[in-house]
Amino acid sequence: MSNLAPFQPPQRRIPVTVLGATGLVGQRFVALLDGHPWFELAGIAASERNAGTRYGDTVRWKVEAEPPAAALNLRLAAPVPGDALPSRIVFSALPAAEAEDIEPRFARAGALVFSNASAYRMAADVPLIVPEINGDHLAALERQRERHGWPGAIVTNPNCSSIGLTLALAPLQPFGIRRVLVTTLQAASGAGYPGVASLDLLDNVIPHIGGEEEKMETETRKILGGWNAETATFEPISTDAMRISATCTRVAVRDGHLETVSVELAGRPSADDLIAAWRDYTGAPQRLGLPTAPMHPLIYREEVDRPQPVRDRLAGRGMAVTVGRLRACDVLDYKFVCLSHNTIRGAAGAALLNAELAVARGIA
Amino acid sequence: MSNLAPFQPPQRRIPVTVLGATGLVGQRFVALLDGHPWFELAGIAASERNAGTRYGDTVRWKVEAEPPAAALNLRLAAPVPGDALPSRIVFSALPAAEAEDIEPRFARAGALVFSNASAYRMAADVPLIVPEINGDHLAALERQRERHGWPGAIVTNPNCSSIGLTLALAPLQPFGIRRVLVTTLQAASGAGYPGVASLDLLDNVIPHIGGEEEKMETETRKILGGWNAETATFEPISTDAMRISATCTRVAVRDGHLETVSVELAGRPSADDLIAAWRDYTGAPQRLGLPTAPMHPLIYREEVDRPQPVRDRLAGRGMAVTVGRLRACDVLDYKFVCLSHNTIRGAAGAALLNAELAVARGIA
Amino acid sequence: MSNLAPFQPPQRRIPVTVLGATGLVGQRFVALLDGHPWFELAGIAASERNAGTRYGDTVRWKVEAEPPAAALNLRLAAPVPGDALPSRIVFSALPAAEAEDIEPRFARAGALVFSNASAYRMAADVPLIVPEINGDHLAALERQRERHGWPGAIVTNPNCSSIGLTLALAPLQPFGIRRVLVTTLQAASGAGYPGVASLDLLDNVIPHIGGEEEKMETETRKILGGWNAETATFEPISTDAMRISATCTRVAVRDGHLETVSVELAGRPSADDLIAAWRDYTGAPQRLGLPTAPMHPLIYREEVDRPQPVRDRLAGRGMAVTVGRLRACDVLDYKFVCLSHNTIRGAAGAALLNAELAVARGIA
Amino acid sequence: MSNLAPFQPPQRRIPVTVLGATGLVGQRFVALLDGHPWFELAGIAASERNAGTRYGDTVRWKVEAEPPAAALNLRLAAPVPGDALPSRIVFSALPAAEAEDIEPRFARAGALVFSNASAYRMAADVPLIVPEINGDHLAALERQRERHGWPGAIVTNPNCSSIGLTLALAPLQPFGIRRVLVTTLQAASGAGYPGVASLDLLDNVIPHIGGEEEKMETETRKILGGWNAETATFEPISTDAMRISATCTRVAVRDGHLETVSVELAGRPSADDLIAAWRDYTGAPQRLGLPTAPMHPLIYREEVDRPQPVRDRLAGRGMAVTVGRLRACDVLDYKFVCLSHNTIRGAAGAALLNAELAVARGIA
Repeated sequence: MSNLAPFQPPQRRIPVTVLGATGLVGQRFVALLDGHPWFELAGIAASERNAGTRYGDTVRWKVEAEPPAAALNLRLAAPVPGDALPSRIVFSALPAAEAEDIEPRFARAGALVFSNASAYRMAADVPLIVPEINGDHLAALERQRERHGWPGAIVTNPNCSSIGLTLALAPLQPFGIRRVLVTTLQAASGAGYPGVASLDLLDNVIPHIGGEEEKMETETRKILGGWNAETATFEPISTDAMRISATCTRVAVRDGHLETVSVELAGRPSADDLIAAWRDYTGAPQRLGLPTAPMHPLIYREEVDRPQPVRDRLAGRGMAVTVGRLRACDVLDYKFVCLSHNTIRGAAGAALLNAELAVARGIA
Repeated sequence: MSNLAPFQPPQRRIPVTVLGATGLVGQRFVALLDGHPWFELAGIAASERNAGTRYGDTVRWKVEAEPPAAALNLRLAAPVPGDALPSRIVFSALPAAEAEDIEPRFARAGALVFSNASAYRMAADVPLIVPEINGDHLAALERQRERHGWPGAIVTNPNCSSIGLTLALAPLQPFGIRRVLVTTLQAASGAGYPGVASLDLLDNVIPHIGGEEEKMETETRKILGGWNAETATFEPISTDAMRISATCTRVAVRDGHLETVSVELAGRPSADDLIAAWRDYTGAPQRLGLPTAPMHPLIYREEVDRPQPVRDRLAGRGMAVTVGRLRACDVLDYKFVCLSHNTIRGAAGAALLNAELAVARGIA
Repeated sequence: MSNLAPFQPPQRRIPVTVLGATGLVGQRFVALLDGHPWFELAGIAASERNAGTRYGDTVRWKVEAEPPAAALNLRLAAPVPGDALPSRIVFSALPAAEAEDIEPRFARAGALVFSNASAYRMAADVPLIVPEINGDHLAALERQRERHGWPGAIVTNPNCSSIGLTLALAPLQPFGIRRVLVTTLQAASGAGYPGVASLDLLDNVIPHIGGEEEKMETETRKILGGWNAETATFEPISTDAMRISATCTRVAVRDGHLETVSVELAGRPSADDLIAAWRDYTGAPQRLGLPTAPMHPLIYREEVDRPQPVRDRLAGRGMAVTVGRLRACDVLDYKFVCLSHNTIRGAAGAALLNAELAVARGIA
Repeated sequence: MSNLAPFQPPQRRIPVTVLGATGLVGQRFVALLDGHPWFELAGIAASERNAGTRYGDTVRWKVEAEPPAAALNLRLAAPVPGDALPSRIVFSALPAAEAEDIEPRFARAGALVFSNASAYRMAADVPLIVPEINGDHLAALERQRERHGWPGAIVTNPNCSSIGLTLALAPLQPFGIRRVLVTTLQAASGAGYPGVASLDLLDNVIPHIGGEEEKMETETRKILGGWNAETATFEPISTDAMRISATCTRVAVRDGHLETVSVELAGRPSADDLIAAWRDYTGAPQRLGLPTAPMHPLIYREEVDRPQPVRDRLAGRGMAVTVGRLRACDVLDYKFVCLSHNTIRGAAGAALLNAELAVARGIA
């Protein structure tokens, strides 16, 4: 994360493509790209059967505001590399099963694919990036390209529930994180649209989200772990060095994953140490001044009843993680609550920040 | 819990009193007493200013069904011992601050007060009872009476979030519970009426409930702890022997507290051992056939997405605790989810079962 | 509705079939048939691909309580007349498109099909029955059988939003209903499962339900209209004689359709006249003592803020319609609010009551 | 509304006061005044007991974003005219009972009070303004000042449910509005904070809001009615000329009142005429370019399922009313659905726009 060379922002906006543009995360990409200083939405793809239709006629827009006027008239293409889909930078909001086939095709065709899908997150040569934390993992792209013979490459961002946790934990790494126990209260939008049936959430909680607990446990180790430049391999934190256990639930909230976390820290820091660590934390996006970077990736709030989804999810335009209620834990050392916007910092905003980092580093 | 002498059910229904009868828990008492085979609601009290009014005219009924016809015409009395309020058995749904003053007056007047209030739960001579677990704590009444010179006495039941946890933990005690980490997702009715503002729960979670975490930690130690007959003192489990840490949140659910729990168990039981322990667990209420006792105090469900508030809160007519999702925990040993109805098993039903136990044991 | 001959309840329980048994309305049928004094659930059908599976393994139970134990071990059959599906009385919870094909096959095979589907509601020889109102429309079965050469027949019940309205209007018919303006606030369960996405209902209202407004307008005319025995035709109330206009919305409620209604009445009754008309109203189900009949089909409540879904939907075990807030309307004559349980009185309970009426009249 | 003289925007920002600054509408005022080009929040008042405290320490902020930094350090004053409260322009978010006493004191002290309270809305010399519709009613101020001998005056805006209705109706006035039947589905924030209990809205609808129906019926007549300059009196539309009937309900929505409306129009316009009337409608705020004016006060949407609270409440930064679903009504002539943000256009934004109009006209 050091030695950040100065860089030139793009002279002109780079035309970019969004795959899976009609889904909920795809819509977030379209919304966040509107007015973006570096990128210009130029290609959008969805399923074969919608190819050729106007975006404005096909999308069932579910993100708060209206779809950007500029996007309405774009024509949807099939998700196949070609002239209709600019391929320098491609954002993927595809479901995992489709991403598995389609993303490599775009990498082979030369695209740097910034993917929100889970398909390749844990692959041995695919970086799983949170730019404040592990931008150096982008070094894996070289090996990925060599191994596959791709001119392009795939870069992934974490699952929506992992990203809040890892950002809350990253500033605590200097204190030696030994154990992490987390329960999530996740928002409906995390399941896409139509996603969770209203009969499953009205007056109810669903205490299970398929595969989510495993993702939180494995992704966190990789993100907080290292990249060994000599062996050109990731070195995730071992399960012995840092034990993680997650319970994931779904609650009647539109956006914003709340997580209750207990941690054991080898270094026995004071509560003030932790709060200072969160408040002082910055990373490459802040130092580089990336367009989508929040000024403070972590916000610590003193109020006894914060963070709350409806109040804090849009902190830092949805890119900051809000932490609160730090106090002693009688089982591990400390416990706290954190919250992040699951479709901005937890999905489309995450991929966008990855792409900005890649551009700033001259990779994209 | 052993040596349960056979007993005669009451020959005729015992007239009982409910204090705080217009509040949400008070209403639950009134509802549960309707048609009760042993008890007959004969006295109801609320605040001074409503004294003399008809219950049907004063109560703002919020429990699902209609108020029982028999209760509608009862007159509210001021919460003062006297002829209007039968004093053999008194149920208290008073707020803690009022309970502190009022409950001792009734005990002094000869009443056995079954209180849902927190005021005396942790007092040195007041039993905090979950009848399946620690009915032997009723022995403390003798000391309580002596010390205060009361003909009556006060018996308490736990806080709504403690009771689900302790019932889920009690069957695991033989395995040696070392650590317990719990996050609650609590229902709106736990805060009474009007309680939580709709603007605080619609599309939101409130990650804080004043005093609740402390109650869960201290009450659980007392309930699962012992009564030393020789010294006539409670011996709560020490914080060293069993470490407990709770995080309490409020979610957009009407009734039913859901809790995610991780436990460390000295005895290294198998998952099947735990499930069998829950399924086989019974206590005095079941053996005595108390009217309000659920057939099974604990229900273990195999489905991956249970328990859920809307589906499981009425299990055992609201008196059973439903457990599910038992699996290994990478930080402690096991994790699971449990759910209980917070105003039935967690409040009015709890006090009612305590009273039934006292009657069966010849104490009331 | 007069000349109700005395009848003998069935000597033994009649084995019945439920088509579409895994859907939300199908589940309601299964729940309501549990312990039914006249009927015994003996055959259940769902889609081809689930044929042969155990009901307990296939159904995703969404109705409040647990599925009845007796139903769990039934095997699902394909929806084809045959030995697996007793065909004297068949309840249909099929979607309209499937009902169109399948219900006539069962009628041809001799079944009396009590259908909740919309496919044949408006057909010229199919009765659309609310037993309190127009049981005489069953006379149409004779013509239906003749015309199609079926030994069996199809009997339908109204759409879930029509039934509350027609039951609230029927007692007002003697006053001469000239105009009806209604806005519905409908529950999520009206759309089945998965039905409405949680992202469409959390913190939201959807002011449109496809086809619903038309159904309310046309079905109400047929139900409140007559059957001309001489011409053997229905004589729905003409659009001139009674003008109806409906606006249908979906709100964040699990069960219970609330409707705000304004009416113009030729007879200029007093408000007390209307309340008396509702309170005194009974029909064939009450006079015959049918098992599923509520004691009072209409309940008028005096409180200013009733009916409410959470409080009133289970009135009369979900079979009564609750009315409240009667007051003068400055545009038409009177306005009021009514509420009915959409999957009990508005769906499965409606068909069940139709079947009970048919049995009592010796038709089934 | 014609002959709008050109005007000079204020040379420097006018210091303004907010009364009732800690309530929900008061908070909206504080939020909307942040960065306002003409006004600067300089005085804030709440109840006596909070006088002297820092706003940031006292307010329980419930509006989405954070309180403006500039407001946090302001000191709350008692609601009494004096140096602490700049008195050229005063915004009142007081409850009606307090407004009745306090607002005249400020008018007497020289303030132009822009009040959201209901206390004086229907008074004979107090204008009830929707600036697009009836800015000419400000002429009543002269009489108000004369009569009371006040240097200042009181200007009111309508109730949150009236304002959406009148803005939707105003463009239809040229077609001769004869009858209006409206049902509202109102948001929780309309009742302030804490307002509606969560137990009254989760899984529920409350079909009654005290006094609301009467307000909608009387306020609409005054707003759409005239000001007779000769007699110096308001001439509300008579109940004979335009009949209005409202039913008001509360639903589980945070912000945004949705209304279903049926109208009878003497002029027999086509549907296209109505849509054109809404789309072409503008008023003084648009022509004057007032800072808070939406570009289009009315937005007509073609989609079958719009407007929706979560999607449309922030149209025109919460100052536009969205209309949709225009279709023939079988009882009156047309029916449609409209939606407005109840605490922006329906409260604080309304008063703010009134103040801007007064400034532009040289009155304030």
